[in-house]
Amino acid sequence: MSEPLFPVEPWVLRETALDTGLLPRTESLFALSNGHIGLRGNLDEGEPHGLPGTYLNSVHETHPLPYAEAGYGYPESGETVINVTNGKLIRLLVDDEPFDVRYGDLLAHERVLDLRAGTLTRSAEWRSPAGRVVRVRSTRLVSFTHRSVVGVVYEVEPVDGTARVVVQSELVANEQLPGPAHPDPRASAVLENPLRSLEHAASDAGALLVHETVRSGLRVAAHMDHRVEASDGVDVEVQAESFPDSGRVTFTAVLEQGQRLRLVKLVSYGWSGTRSLPAVRDQVRAAIVGAWHSGWDGLLADQRAYLDDYWAGADVEVHGDPELQQAVRFALFHVLQAGSRAERRPIPAKGLTGPGYDGHCFWDTETFVLPLLNRTAPDAAADALQWRRSTLPAAVARAQQLGLRGAAFPWRTIDGAECSAYWPAGTAAFHVNADIADAVIRYVDATGDDDFARTAGIEILVQTARLWHSLGHLGADGSFRIEGVTGPDEYSAVVDNNVYTNLMAQRNLLAAADSCDRYADQAAELDVSTEESAAWRSCAEAMHVPYDEELGIHPQDDAFIAHDLWDFAVTPAEKYPLLLHFPYFDLYRKQVVKQADLVLAMHLRGDAFTAEQKARNFAYYEALTVRDSSLSACTQAVLAAEVGHLDLAYDYAAEAALTDLHDLAANTGNGLHMASLAGAWISLVHGFGGLRDDGGRLAFAPRLPEGIDRLVFRVRHRGLRVRVETDGRQATYAVEDGGREAVVQHYGETLVLRPDVSETRAVPPVEPRPRPRQPEGRAPLPRSARKGGVAARET
Amino acid sequence: MSEPLFPVEPWVLRETALDTGLLPRTESLFALSNGHIGLRGNLDEGEPHGLPGTYLNSVHETHPLPYAEAGYGYPESGETVINVTNGKLIRLLVDDEPFDVRYGDLLAHERVLDLRAGTLTRSAEWRSPAGRVVRVRSTRLVSFTHRSVVGVVYEVEPVDGTARVVVQSELVANEQLPGPAHPDPRASAVLENPLRSLEHAASDAGALLVHETVRSGLRVAAHMDHRVEASDGVDVEVQAESFPDSGRVTFTAVLEQGQRLRLVKLVSYGWSGTRSLPAVRDQVRAAIVGAWHSGWDGLLADQRAYLDDYWAGADVEVHGDPELQQAVRFALFHVLQAGSRAERRPIPAKGLTGPGYDGHCFWDTETFVLPLLNRTAPDAAADALQWRRSTLPAAVARAQQLGLRGAAFPWRTIDGAECSAYWPAGTAAFHVNADIADAVIRYVDATGDDDFARTAGIEILVQTARLWHSLGHLGADGSFRIEGVTGPDEYSAVVDNNVYTNLMAQRNLLAAADSCDRYADQAAELDVSTEESAAWRSCAEAMHVPYDEELGIHPQDDAFIAHDLWDFAVTPAEKYPLLLHFPYFDLYRKQVVKQADLVLAMHLRGDAFTAEQKARNFAYYEALTVRDSSLSACTQAVLAAEVGHLDLAYDYAAEAALTDLHDLAANTGNGLHMASLAGAWISLVHGFGGLRDDGGRLAFAPRLPEGIDRLVFRVRHRGLRVRVETDGRQATYAVEDGGREAVVQHYGETLVLRPDVSETRAVPPVEPRPRPRQPEGRAPLPRSARKGGVAARET
Repeated sequence: MSEPLFPVEPWVLRETALDTGLLPRTESLFALSNGHIGLRGNLDEGEPHGLPGTYLNSVHETHPLPYAEAGYGYPESGETVINVTNGKLIRLLVDDEPFDVRYGDLLAHERVLDLRAGTLTRSAEWRSPAGRVVRVRSTRLVSFTHRSVVGVVYEVEPVDGTARVVVQSELVANEQLPGPAHPDPRASAVLENPLRSLEHAASDAGALLVHETVRSGLRVAAHMDHRVEASDGVDVEVQAESFPDSGRVTFTAVLEQGQRLRLVKLVSYGWSGTRSLPAVRDQVRAAIVGAWHSGWDGLLADQRAYLDDYWAGADVEVHGDPELQQAVRFALFHVLQAGSRAERRPIPAKGLTGPGYDGHCFWDTETFVLPLLNRTAPDAAADALQWRRSTLPAAVARAQQLGLRGAAFPWRTIDGAECSAYWPAGTAAFHVNADIADAVIRYVDATGDDDFARTAGIEILVQTARLWHSLGHLGADGSFRIEGVTGPDEYSAVVDNNVYTNLMAQRNLLAAADSCDRYADQAAELDVSTEESAAWRSCAEAMHVPYDEELGIHPQDDAFIAHDLWDFAVTPAEKYPLLLHFPYFDLYRKQVVKQADLVLAMHLRGDAFTAEQKARNFAYYEALTVRDSSLSACTQAVLAAEVGHLDLAYDYAAEAALTDLHDLAANTGNGLHMASLAGAWISLVHGFGGLRDDGGRLAFAPRLPEGIDRLVFRVRHRGLRVRVETDGRQATYAVEDGGREAVVQHYGETLVLRPDVSETRAVPPVEPRPRPRQPEGRAPLPRSARKGGVAARET
Repeated sequence: MSEPLFPVEPWVLRETALDTGLLPRTESLFALSNGHIGLRGNLDEGEPHGLPGTYLNSVHETHPLPYAEAGYGYPESGETVINVTNGKLIRLLVDDEPFDVRYGDLLAHERVLDLRAGTLTRSAEWRSPAGRVVRVRSTRLVSFTHRSVVGVVYEVEPVDGTARVVVQSELVANEQLPGPAHPDPRASAVLENPLRSLEHAASDAGALLVHETVRSGLRVAAHMDHRVEASDGVDVEVQAESFPDSGRVTFTAVLEQGQRLRLVKLVSYGWSGTRSLPAVRDQVRAAIVGAWHSGWDGLLADQRAYLDDYWAGADVEVHGDPELQQAVRFALFHVLQAGSRAERRPIPAKGLTGPGYDGHCFWDTETFVLPLLNRTAPDAAADALQWRRSTLPAAVARAQQLGLRGAAFPWRTIDGAECSAYWPAGTAAFHVNADIADAVIRYVDATGDDDFARTAGIEILVQTARLWHSLGHLGADGSFRIEGVTGPDEYSAVVDNNVYTNLMAQRNLLAAADSCDRYADQAAELDVSTEESAAWRSCAEAMHVPYDEELGIHPQDDAFIAHDLWDFAVTPAEKYPLLLHFPYFDLYRKQVVKQADLVLAMHLRGDAFTAEQKARNFAYYEALTVRDSSLSACTQAVLAAEVGHLDLAYDYAAEAALTDLHDLAANTGNGLHMASLAGAWISLVHGFGGLRDDGGRLAFAPRLPEGIDRLVFRVRHRGLRVRVETDGRQATYAVEDGGREAVVQHYGETLVLRPDVSETRAVPPVEPRPRPRQPEGRAPLPRSARKGGVAARET
């Protein structure tokens, strides 16, 4: 293929031809979502497909988790996102021939994801096996402003003669999935037909299906309705029918050459584990009526206005690298889609773009996704944290089960219960609690949201601080030690004094104590005594942070640097990711790092390291880090930029940004990697922009690699927008949209930004250092190579 | 219950009344086995039962091992021992009333396991619901001399009038088991009816059933035949019939008061995964014919002669403690039963007495059972090691899978494949390899079996040495370090430099190098170069053995003593065993010990510790050891005795010896604890006898606690028997049965024992030390309390 499949364009992702072999991947890339509803980019007619997918945030089924040897505290029940009623299906028959791209001739096919319009449009020209040529156009949106509503406009027009066209617009529940529904056969059996029909109805041009999930007991309703238009003189016959697992409205017309049939389809979704069937049914009916009130054009206009507002505060301009420009906007768009209307539901690792990781939410959300949302769509960040708060009862119960006080948030979950069947993650990866606390701290710092701080914020901080207090112990030397934990790096497990965990716990403990000082009444309600918060401070102050004086580096944990080095020289490329080819005990006992861990500590707790320590640590861990996780490149980009390896930072930024567009992990078909998409933004804004916001400050240290001429970005800060622009030699700061002044730092210098007055400062030169080495064969692709090599990678 | 259920008698275990609630336990205690065939002590008539059980060593079924989250190297298939065709069933009808102790009145009932006769006898007097009283007597044996043969004599006699008796002697396959066949439902489904009929036949007074297991593909044949006698003038009608899953021979007679029907039933078993159906059928037929040739009286006489020979070399006399006397003989009998005719098949953790641990063999066999067999029945020890050798191909393949050289023997298995679904055991518990090597070394030292040493012995030593060489690495300080291993203590896992593992690996490496020096040709065949064996020596010499200078103790592993102490004060009795009430991460990160680990190292590698280190280490680990495993008390007994805590050693010895007789672990119903039974002998012979046999020497250091007046034991040594007798003040040594002199040590003094000349030496006084403390509530029951308290415990 000499033409790139996705040409580089600033504001759209365009597919110029249909490659059915790439459908799993393009269905993820072209997924539409508002955080509440998610539609994979399946073709309107449903087939061929990689994986049909329609998701409602948190609609899941539970299933038994099997253990050949069970242990105390192992979760008994798993949760898996299910494919709910498909409302995007529109099938077409042309003179009785079904429009199916696998038959006849596809003369032209284009799909465009428009990042400003918030729509997926498709146009196709198809010659049926019988020789009739038709043009089909569709536009699909999942409304940001009407949270429960999906809309599709579907047009068909014969190009070369008269055709009898039949358009069947459908709702289909319990779609057949390719392959087993889950790798575990018992779970697969539960998930095969996850929906049980409760009610179905059809009338006029609409249909309604109500189902429930069998084990998790959630009621799911989908309602569709249509408006049809046709060229003058065309008679359209409409017929609606319903069955337990499907609803169908059929439009039949005879179109002469150039005549057009145009259908507007609106679908509304509702679900509840609590509300009655009539309540859920009424809810979807109301949503449809509300959407018709706006009408299709109104939905389109609202969608664009919503996105205009987002882009005004979120856009990142990358001059000199149009591919990275496109990638970061694609990333910003998808992260918004995952979070914008999740509204007290989780933001899963894959958003609502696919069933990967069973639809579970991990620490990825707090550590990678929320930093972006805090600075671009803070209400969405607040919602995600409110969801965490809503799961506190489950987290408190889990902590009790584990013999601890406070709250132990789950490693992976949909509804708040721990779903990890692997205990070194599901019990020992306690850092997730500090990650959530850190997200609370950063959200409050970024927004000044005092209501949040005094309600959800303090609750989360207090319960997580209690966890750390009960988890650690005072060593013989008086230091506070946290043992038996799994840090971010999944190639070590159940270690003692993981530096990342200890530093993040330290922040957590101090922030909880501070919060209790600030909100004394709320602290009292949470039964926090002055002794308790003083104890948190003592633990934080005494926190053990391992440091090796001889090497001048921080070991990832107590035992890490005494361990044997992984023998990279005898590890060929096909043995990666290592966890698929080596046993855990061997990974765990050697110096090999799956993903940034100590390096992530240097990003999120940069205050705990000197510049020289950062440089030495970075070089040390670069040589050990294999990036078998997509949660690594962006952090390595940030630290590479900070310690002065700008080319390397650029390589990592590109890797993070292109993870899905180039399918670098070969699993984009299961859904997009939200953390890595957010990582594209983190790489640019925290990396090249040098944004750090620890302790409430808003600090920048911009610097650019060769290849990026100019970088412009905005961040929201306490109701203001701060605009940062740099060409690598100087940086200009301005406050927008608020009429108040903002205080920022430029390389440690405090700048007071008055409205409409920009401040420009020189960028200090980067001290050259030798470029660190990565494990053999694991260096990132040089950006210089990638920039010329896109087309080659696609083939 | 005021009378003890099992009165203390020196040579029998007698049950004086039938308590059907105790059936699961008594079926295990009264199990008969020769290591090839195992019969639980089920009542002749089959019901009521705790758990019906008939086992053939290694006859198992395989089943998928389920994982909610699978990992590299996790075994896909499990193995579970199956209940094979039950040949011990003899049902009786008295005037059409089935003899069932749950109905009518049981006027008397006694069962006796005779440890010198090798039989289980039963006598019952029963009044049927219709009022007829009969006397039933049976004697059952599993022949030590006819490996494939089981015999039963069954007699019935009406006591108070004429009765029509029908005796149905049966073979039954696929017996219904109480409850699920396995805790995992998928495995249970596989194991529900594990046998598929291949052939069945009946003729004269016999019947034959041939089955095969569905997945593991093993053919199992059982053949029964009978001889019947009756009082003069009694006419006995005999009828034989067969069905796919049962064979039945029915004997019908009318007996007047005092007339007797006597039936001799012989059953032969055969199985093979290789040989054809006709071959297996012929084999069982031949075995029956051979057994009839001996006849019942011949079988009985052979059985007693076999046991006489065993007891002559194995008996331990415990004067002053008749309960312990009985217990150690019971233990010696059952360990012999588990191993005597296993013949290149494993000795499972439960022997063939029950389905506990799925019938798997663990390191228990090499570390606890073989020391006893080496000194009492060395051929059985050789057979068990030959079985291990036969599994070397699987162990080599497993090492390769784990990325290692040499052999990695399984944590648990029946046929040599790893069956552990818990990777911290199934991959990281590498000490099992050193345990097997140690058993090889000790067997060769004890027997001088040069043929074994130059064949199986060197192969095992070389392949295990290769494992250690590839598993460890040289640290920065030049020491050889073994990281990421799980030692014996299952409350720590995947640790660095477990002292036990490192010391045992050290011995393994040196022994392999020595063996290669001694058997150069065999070494060459195994491709051992001089460089390779020199490297083993270097690794052994550089072996890292952690030691804490400040505390003067050996930490169990690198990180152990830095860890927080388990809070025993807040751990109530009902929270034990801890692993059922606390998560792994918490157990692993704290100082709490499930079972002797460092203390076991001091037993098996006593040469690596000074006397003072032993005393300090023992005291330190006593305070942390909760004995949630039955593999602990005997080792604690041995070290307690060595460091001078004789009362404590006595307490532990009694605990080890009474584990099953008193059902201390509340799971004797699943089968007897072979390692703990062997531990009774270890406690007495290694503990109070002070036997140590490292490095080929035969050293003793006898000392007795108050309560044992005199201890006499024998050990086999290179074809001789050495008799040791002590009253605690002096010790007398003599060589028996060989006509050659033997060299032994008494407290370090070398004694040359000439035939028929005994040597007597004084026992040095024990230096008093403060009695160490155990974790709160976990001290062993004082032997003084136990001696008077048996009856109380039974209620």
